[in-house]
Amino acid sequence: MVGASMTRFGVRPESPKRLFAEATADAFASVEKSMDARDVQEAWVGSMAFGGWQFGNTAAYLIEQAGLPGIPAQRVENACASSGFALRDAVLAIRSGACDVALVGGLEKMNDISGLHKRYWLGVSGDTAWERMAGATFPGVYAMMASRHMHEFRTQALDLASVAVKNHANGAKNPHAQFQRAITLEKALASPMVASPLTMFDCCSTTDGAAVLLLASEGHARKYTDTPIWVDGSGAATDMLAVHDRPSMTTLPATVKAAGVAYAEAGVSATDIDLAEVHDCFTIAEVLATEDLGFCGKGEGGAFAREGRGAIGRDVAVNSSGGLKAKGHPLGATGAGQAVEVFEQLHGKAGGRQVSGAEVALTHNVGGSGATCAVHVYRRG
Amino acid sequence: MVGASMTRFGVRPESPKRLFAEATADAFASVEKSMDARDVQEAWVGSMAFGGWQFGNTAAYLIEQAGLPGIPAQRVENACASSGFALRDAVLAIRSGACDVALVGGLEKMNDISGLHKRYWLGVSGDTAWERMAGATFPGVYAMMASRHMHEFRTQALDLASVAVKNHANGAKNPHAQFQRAITLEKALASPMVASPLTMFDCCSTTDGAAVLLLASEGHARKYTDTPIWVDGSGAATDMLAVHDRPSMTTLPATVKAAGVAYAEAGVSATDIDLAEVHDCFTIAEVLATEDLGFCGKGEGGAFAREGRGAIGRDVAVNSSGGLKAKGHPLGATGAGQAVEVFEQLHGKAGGRQVSGAEVALTHNVGGSGATCAVHVYRRG
Repeated sequence: MVGASMTRFGVRPESPKRLFAEATADAFASVEKSMDARDVQEAWVGSMAFGGWQFGNTAAYLIEQAGLPGIPAQRVENACASSGFALRDAVLAIRSGACDVALVGGLEKMNDISGLHKRYWLGVSGDTAWERMAGATFPGVYAMMASRHMHEFRTQALDLASVAVKNHANGAKNPHAQFQRAITLEKALASPMVASPLTMFDCCSTTDGAAVLLLASEGHARKYTDTPIWVDGSGAATDMLAVHDRPSMTTLPATVKAAGVAYAEAGVSATDIDLAEVHDCFTIAEVLATEDLGFCGKGEGGAFAREGRGAIGRDVAVNSSGGLKAKGHPLGATGAGQAVEVFEQLHGKAGGRQVSGAEVALTHNVGGSGATCAVHVYRRG
Repeated sequence: MVGASMTRFGVRPESPKRLFAEATADAFASVEKSMDARDVQEAWVGSMAFGGWQFGNTAAYLIEQAGLPGIPAQRVENACASSGFALRDAVLAIRSGACDVALVGGLEKMNDISGLHKRYWLGVSGDTAWERMAGATFPGVYAMMASRHMHEFRTQALDLASVAVKNHANGAKNPHAQFQRAITLEKALASPMVASPLTMFDCCSTTDGAAVLLLASEGHARKYTDTPIWVDGSGAATDMLAVHDRPSMTTLPATVKAAGVAYAEAGVSATDIDLAEVHDCFTIAEVLATEDLGFCGKGEGGAFAREGRGAIGRDVAVNSSGGLKAKGHPLGATGAGQAVEVFEQLHGKAGGRQVSGAEVALTHNVGGSGATCAVHVYRRG
């Protein structure tokens, strides 16, 4: 990874093409030496692209509007894991020798969709027949996971709120974040109930934004930077769409599988990770991720959060960017956005949220309620 | 390529998951030795997926329903070129060493969408601001290309109708085809005008269907078959979405670029191709493709068609399957469906439409009006 940038996530009135072009220009500007559109040979763009805007040939359109017409480009759709999988495609393409410089993008516009449509479209990333048609929106599905985790492991509302407090504290120091204000435990615990036991501060937001990564092969990276970030591991997996088809509600097997592959490729284990951007679409999702990624044992995710072990400077910095919770969650842009945080952190450019001495990082991007997952492991060059 | 199959294309009342599962089961059955779901390590599924059915996490859903839960899978959306690009991803992934056995799928359900929605969704694969909002549907855009080709090169309505007659004659011998009846030149020329100069028989149809390919690495292919079909070349490109942004209306630069890469990788030229499945969404599109792929010179595509040089047994068999015109065009399934024809032809199993002695083949899959294109070259092992 030789360049990476993102728009500020949030409520963005600009058109999708403007957001994407902004992130692309900023990504070129982030390259230490020099890179421009002519250097890029192929592109993969993750977007769920719902909402009725440009919908077919989306990647060609965005690439053209960002000033890179003509190169091979394609859209990847894996719900909220779209750009995590786009990153995987680009990594494999570079490994294959098909290209030496690739662009990975992510994009979503959510705020100009009316409320009813938003619920409808979001829901289709989960099971339709038994969840959505029965009224189970995503907060409902993750609330069931939280309830079960509380039942099995005595996890508390306080544990979940601790995730929100940590992530908002980190987001307060991230100029890219949608929400740049710290919150207190009291505020989180007293916020309105959305789907019991999840309150408003247990849920991520509705977000617009774009993120762009620039990748180069081992042989070409040094043309662009003296400090490349190596993508040492790429793992991915799927799972049954419906939560009731899985053996347990307190683990995401796709995370476990994808992480296993990524760790093995990179030759590292969970204890080597200095910072991890994990998919906290809900606070319980971060609790599950810290367990499934091996940062703590099964059932210990609540205590891990409550004891602050995911804070910057502790065991492993979990969501130093603010995560989906505070940085925001523009579905298709989230996976690429996670890698932008890795790029800034491993270059020591994360300002007030810097993880000191960070050398090895991980991103964890989940689609829906765990039907898809992509995990990548990075190392400072 | 060690296995390939497709549903019959046409008006299919079955659900998307049933169509995809049918094509997957048939693809496994097509493997000479033996292969089952456990052999497949990763999947890419092309689908434009419009119409409001399952829309996020589509690949995970289809893969699960086809009996392959858990493996990494993703949806690729590049309008009508979706599964051509899915094939490219799988080829690059195998070349990279990330997997040894991959599944490539394509799927579309078009017939249960109401007329107005169909026009709307189809249109979004072209330019919105200047084409769609001005009323230019795809037949209109291709009609402009045809008019210009007639103006520049004296191409005639008869030439276009000759494409339709050839492709329907081929489709009549293809049990997978939506339309299995030959038509006469008189019938084609007398059919109702859709967008002048394109009549009904110049246009492809509205189609449901699925197609699945099974790929294996060079080291693993012989476990599954003694007669693998090698994918020797993969090329892809994009172009400006709006036709008015391109220097010419009588060529698709994305085709020229993608074919150049695919030919070079495969070490062949146009004269080596025994059969070519080209993207004839309209008859004029086949005329342009025969020129852009190098089967004849610029401006000679009309004469090439009129003189029957694309018929089976002549210069090169163009659309021996019947093409999009007669086999049908279920957008996201078309690219994979083209490769199914190659698989059957290069194994000598194409029945009454067999291209005798076929050894080298090409597929040409276009998205929208040429904003995306993927070309692959194959060789009998």
